[in-house]
Amino acid sequence: VKARKKKKLPNYTQIILESLEGGDTARVRSVLGQLHPADIGKLLESIPPQQRHAVWALTEPGKDGEVLLEVSEDVRRDLIREMDGAELVAAARALDIDDIADLIPDLSDEVIAEILFALGKQDRQRLDAVLSYADDTAGGLMNVDTVTVRENISQEVVLRYLRSRGALPEHTVNLFVVDRADHLLGVLPLTRLLTTDTSLRVSQVMDRDVTKFAATTPDRDVAAAFERYNLVAAPVVDEQNRLIGRITIDDVVDVLRERADESIMGMGGLHKEEDLFAPVLRKARNRWPWILLNLVTAFVASSVIGAYQETIHVLVVLAALMPIVAAIAGNTGNQTVALIVRALALGEVNYASLGRLLLRELAVSAVNGALWGLIAGVVVWVIYRDLRLASVLAVAMLLNLLVAAAMGVLIPLVLRRMGRDPALGSTVLLTATTDSMGFLIFLSLATFVLV
Amino acid sequence: VKARKKKKLPNYTQIILESLEGGDTARVRSVLGQLHPADIGKLLESIPPQQRHAVWALTEPGKDGEVLLEVSEDVRRDLIREMDGAELVAAARALDIDDIADLIPDLSDEVIAEILFALGKQDRQRLDAVLSYADDTAGGLMNVDTVTVRENISQEVVLRYLRSRGALPEHTVNLFVVDRADHLLGVLPLTRLLTTDTSLRVSQVMDRDVTKFAATTPDRDVAAAFERYNLVAAPVVDEQNRLIGRITIDDVVDVLRERADESIMGMGGLHKEEDLFAPVLRKARNRWPWILLNLVTAFVASSVIGAYQETIHVLVVLAALMPIVAAIAGNTGNQTVALIVRALALGEVNYASLGRLLLRELAVSAVNGALWGLIAGVVVWVIYRDLRLASVLAVAMLLNLLVAAAMGVLIPLVLRRMGRDPALGSTVLLTATTDSMGFLIFLSLATFVLV
Repeated sequence: VKARKKKKLPNYTQIILESLEGGDTARVRSVLGQLHPADIGKLLESIPPQQRHAVWALTEPGKDGEVLLEVSEDVRRDLIREMDGAELVAAARALDIDDIADLIPDLSDEVIAEILFALGKQDRQRLDAVLSYADDTAGGLMNVDTVTVRENISQEVVLRYLRSRGALPEHTVNLFVVDRADHLLGVLPLTRLLTTDTSLRVSQVMDRDVTKFAATTPDRDVAAAFERYNLVAAPVVDEQNRLIGRITIDDVVDVLRERADESIMGMGGLHKEEDLFAPVLRKARNRWPWILLNLVTAFVASSVIGAYQETIHVLVVLAALMPIVAAIAGNTGNQTVALIVRALALGEVNYASLGRLLLRELAVSAVNGALWGLIAGVVVWVIYRDLRLASVLAVAMLLNLLVAAAMGVLIPLVLRRMGRDPALGSTVLLTATTDSMGFLIFLSLATFVLV
Repeated sequence: VKARKKKKLPNYTQIILESLEGGDTARVRSVLGQLHPADIGKLLESIPPQQRHAVWALTEPGKDGEVLLEVSEDVRRDLIREMDGAELVAAARALDIDDIADLIPDLSDEVIAEILFALGKQDRQRLDAVLSYADDTAGGLMNVDTVTVRENISQEVVLRYLRSRGALPEHTVNLFVVDRADHLLGVLPLTRLLTTDTSLRVSQVMDRDVTKFAATTPDRDVAAAFERYNLVAAPVVDEQNRLIGRITIDDVVDVLRERADESIMGMGGLHKEEDLFAPVLRKARNRWPWILLNLVTAFVASSVIGAYQETIHVLVVLAALMPIVAAIAGNTGNQTVALIVRALALGEVNYASLGRLLLRELAVSAVNGALWGLIAGVVVWVIYRDLRLASVLAVAMLLNLLVAAAMGVLIPLVLRRMGRDPALGSTVLLTATTDSMGFLIFLSLATFVLV
């Protein structure tokens, strides 16, 4: 069963790539016609630009807008470059207001003007409202298609209203109860409406204790609340508690996915949405800040060794052993970093428990440093038959593991305190520290004891 | 606004810890009484064992079951050890069947027997059904509280049935349409039921094209489908297409969170649910396999250097420069690893595009190796005024970055091919390779050119 999904994806990718090569565009069109926009997006992300553009040209225009929403930023920009103004306007018009808002940053001013022109006045105002909030806030995440009712009408009337209104927006699970001035009073779950007496008034059955979000709430807090309280949909209000939109779980799932991507990619110092097949020069450039940082710290580590050149000249074996001290601490410290980054993401670290957490990680390092330092020392003794050399290595490993534990806890916390993403670059900084300190501890101990 | 959540959490943690210290158990109880079980779970995870046990003893028994579901495995076992049989049975009885199933693995045989005894016959059968599927499959994830209707009745009758039935299970968005033998025919969304003509039959309004899951579908595939197709709930069927349960988005969100945790923690080689405050010896032991692997690879790298001791003896500065070659490649290679691990998780890498992907990463490394090798070479020339030494460093950096790109793509793919988690240990293996190869390339070039 595990292999099934892996095979399914390459299958249609394979068919499309082969049909494309064979010039069978009808076949490509027909396979694309059967795919969900999300699947077309995934396909476009997994193939190189030349084929991507060919497939994109063959995708039916009706799916264009939804596909654009599914792909990563880099790929989206690439696809938009392939479309003319009329195609973009048509693609946007097929979408919900909040989805159009997501595309706006990647569109040219002329295309945006044309889209605004094509929208009705009410939709234009709604789009304006969504665009006035940052992308990564509840306001940027929300949908404006709320269905509202008043509290003093009976459920009977609500039922008649819904039936006369026709289809409800996707993922509607609650009706929002508001007063004349749109102030949010509560929510009426559809399940409640369906199971309680129809003669009751809305005010008698609605939930007044509602988890709601201010438009400026950061999306990570929204996602955390949805996850913690098992929400499916929640209202968004302005400073006066007026209902301005609703957030649904599918958008929150995207936020959770993005956060997870950021953590994985961020540990390496990459942007979360790097296109696998971005142009080589762009990919190369993305990594420059980290290489620069890394080069600087590597030269620092190098200068530490440089300061002990005479010691190494006397005892060349030190040059062979010093990377061991650095490597073990680097990897162990990165485990601590991973632990703290996750705990921070889950909100499990607070400054009250910080001291105890640090002590515990130091204790773990003390145990492992003593044990594995001893093991490494024995190995060195077996190879070089030099007890003092073996002891220096063992003690240096122990000390550097303590450095690794302390820095592994502190680096992510300090980054967070500075308002930065604790995942971003923690490992680069950790390794820089454990390298330099490893060389320093080992070589200075060796100079003192052995030379 | 950003600071708000960060402050809220420490606040009640602080109050509880302080009240605990001051012996004010009434205060602790009152704060706990206002918290959602998820918040109590978070609190228990973020405090050390001694306080954790004290708080747990003061938590009202009615919330025990739900709190146990919210905490990580390690913490759950810790809390369960603090409870006696009667408390555990009471906690379990307050839960849904699928939630009881999640607790079963951590309970003793006697407690399980008591819980089974306390359940009615139907619930016992349902629990059996859920337990017969692995934890990480659709069957293990599903809820058994489906609401079903027949296709040949009118919506009018459905409405009457729902009103006579009373409250619907949490997160009910669809009714499931089944025949006499429970075969799944379609779903009737509540929104459809509320907005279409009540005289229509279920068969006239239901969706027949339903995304459904076999009970044995891996949970990661279920999560991917929910994410891709924006689902809120989906039916689970057996081999005969008989409805056996439903999966709701809140359980899927937990799976997505777990996968994200696995990636972050896995990159460091840790188990995803390690308790922050696990006993020191257990935490230390968790890391032994990786330290051992790391120690072996570090000694390999060390022996590479050992083979060039004479070269280093002649030119000690090589010892100072060789870690630069290793460090830059290690960090750059880990960026490639992060990129590939994420792409694998999203299903974006297929063997059709593998060759192109590898070439592209190699090209990126060639560009960055040439550029940053040159920069590092210039720095070395400025410091040591030795053009040949500077050239050797530049060329070694370029070559080792190519090694890093190739291994960064291949290591996660090979791990995946071997059926292992590509995130787990990729970075340890990558660093081991770039260290050894870095020393080998740099020192052999230096021996050839300089000595």
